[in-house]
Amino acid sequence: MPGRSEEEVLDAIEARRRRPTRKVLDKQITLSHGAGGKASRDLVEGILLRELRNPLLEPLADSAIVEAGAERLAFTTDSFVVKPIFFPGGDIGELAVNGTVNDLAMSGARPLALSAGLIIEEGLPVKDLERIAASIAAAAEAAGVPVATGDTKVVERGKADGLYVNTSGVGIVEHDLALVPSSIEPGDKVLVSGPIGDHGMAIMIARGELALEVELSSDTAPLNGLVSTLLEATDGVRCLRDPTRGGLATVLAELALSAEVGITIEESELPIRPEVAGACEILGIDPIYVANEGKLIAVVSSDAADAALAALRSHPLGREAAIIAEVSAEPPGLVTLDTTFGGSRVVDMLAGDPLPRIC
Amino acid sequence: MPGRSEEEVLDAIEARRRRPTRKVLDKQITLSHGAGGKASRDLVEGILLRELRNPLLEPLADSAIVEAGAERLAFTTDSFVVKPIFFPGGDIGELAVNGTVNDLAMSGARPLALSAGLIIEEGLPVKDLERIAASIAAAAEAAGVPVATGDTKVVERGKADGLYVNTSGVGIVEHDLALVPSSIEPGDKVLVSGPIGDHGMAIMIARGELALEVELSSDTAPLNGLVSTLLEATDGVRCLRDPTRGGLATVLAELALSAEVGITIEESELPIRPEVAGACEILGIDPIYVANEGKLIAVVSSDAADAALAALRSHPLGREAAIIAEVSAEPPGLVTLDTTFGGSRVVDMLAGDPLPRIC
Repeated sequence: MPGRSEEEVLDAIEARRRRPTRKVLDKQITLSHGAGGKASRDLVEGILLRELRNPLLEPLADSAIVEAGAERLAFTTDSFVVKPIFFPGGDIGELAVNGTVNDLAMSGARPLALSAGLIIEEGLPVKDLERIAASIAAAAEAAGVPVATGDTKVVERGKADGLYVNTSGVGIVEHDLALVPSSIEPGDKVLVSGPIGDHGMAIMIARGELALEVELSSDTAPLNGLVSTLLEATDGVRCLRDPTRGGLATVLAELALSAEVGITIEESELPIRPEVAGACEILGIDPIYVANEGKLIAVVSSDAADAALAALRSHPLGREAAIIAEVSAEPPGLVTLDTTFGGSRVVDMLAGDPLPRIC
Repeated sequence: MPGRSEEEVLDAIEARRRRPTRKVLDKQITLSHGAGGKASRDLVEGILLRELRNPLLEPLADSAIVEAGAERLAFTTDSFVVKPIFFPGGDIGELAVNGTVNDLAMSGARPLALSAGLIIEEGLPVKDLERIAASIAAAAEAAGVPVATGDTKVVERGKADGLYVNTSGVGIVEHDLALVPSSIEPGDKVLVSGPIGDHGMAIMIARGELALEVELSSDTAPLNGLVSTLLEATDGVRCLRDPTRGGLATVLAELALSAEVGITIEESELPIRPEVAGACEILGIDPIYVANEGKLIAVVSSDAADAALAALRSHPLGREAAIIAEVSAEPPGLVTLDTTFGGSRVVDMLAGDPLPRIC
């Protein structure tokens, strides 16, 4: 597949540059606004950031960095509306704990405490709630982070979908690295800690709406240990992200845009399980847009790439890590993918929502 | 109305003492589990605390106290499912900001940052979301606390009720007071910062299900300034609580139980607006069980009571503060109310849910 023309590329960049001041033109919220891609970004930038603008929120990072007396804290929040609430490899409780631990870890913070806010639908079996509470407890234990505070609300039958879970987290930043997109430089390498697309495809298959017989499990896992291992091994880490909603493609597109760099993905280097690749092919979904819940993307300096790869592979959650992309000065804001067949194409953020309610 | 017999009182105390190990016997979650009263406590203690038990969570206070390097943090979370999302005196956004600011303030912390997690129903008018985002921004500005991090999710039409909002908050504790129930001692006085029941009754009337023509507004307000004023005026403050779900009665019942003291409310001292009292009478609801969103209860040492009252009254949000109750050694765990007519009755926690989805 050939890349776009230069004119198209320049148009695409210009369109992106304009986006931060774009208004939401829809009259009503749609599922696309929740998918983590373009419409989500429009929603956040066009409505929420427009109103709430402040220096802590503005970076729109996985965690905000907050000064607290002598300490620097990371603070993050995430609501989980995954459907179904139990799925192969985990459930909404474990997902919520890991998701928030990971958002803290991506800012290089050591997680200190989590909150859990449950919105429960009247009629939820008590045994399901017990199972999820046990799962939250086990995940918190595995990540080494206590659930310090919580809240429960109950809404009438039909007004939620079993259970929604919000987890927020507080961590402490104990290093001097600026793990932000603006630290990214041309020549940097992009690593992924393992095979992509497992979580999203596992959820799709768990819904039972597809006539696919594949055994797939969510990759939900706490990445704080993996991040510690990486940061101990090298000080060449520029930026960390966990590619959840919108997948690898959307995260890299956001990084390219924020850092004003180009990123070229080498398709042949992307780790993808054959089952995931097969399911994606049948469904016509590109795995680079599929959500992950136990993977990280690390942008590292060129000379730190080998040490970073070795560090990731030394950890149980990074055994299949790979160097998948390279950063360039040009064209700023654009991600391209060099395909296995020798072509090249532009990789945009997720548009629309092929996979609703994935987290 | 005469009080219960001594035997009944002792039975009630014994029943409460047994509760922390009680299991949830219901097979399904009911609206009562979300009302903030007895069933909520059973849910939290019987399922969540049982699984998640750890020293940070165990006090079940409005905020957890978390050590972060050299600093002591307060950390809290609250989900808001109020119905309708716009009501006289505020909306779900303002309520969420103030609710979390207040939970931090009740632990004597200075709020540093808030998070906002929105679960939006597909089809919500964009202009409603814009209005609520503006309201969150204005409330955060009024409280002097930035919204540092956020998250949005969208669920299908019919799977939420317009909008649910979770706010979490981080604050810093800059004093050495132990503002916990165990600091409460016999002889202490209980103050309330103003008229009770406004929020709950305003919501009830806003639903339009009642044939009442009363102009009532929610009292939603950020109490961090009021708490600062109080703590600067006296070091005799034992414990602070904001009487939200379950109202004044449930908060005092919980304090009596936790501190193992008796609390006697003087009904004639309770500040209640005539409109609220009237609406409550017509509906057969006791205003001491009705939610407040801009009031605090302060337990203070006897000799600090006058200074505390003066401090509260010096602040715009505490003009109508009053001393409403006294703490005694006996009977431990029990709240009684001396009625205006010279009788006395036992005040228990809220049972059932006369006012669902109030916050």
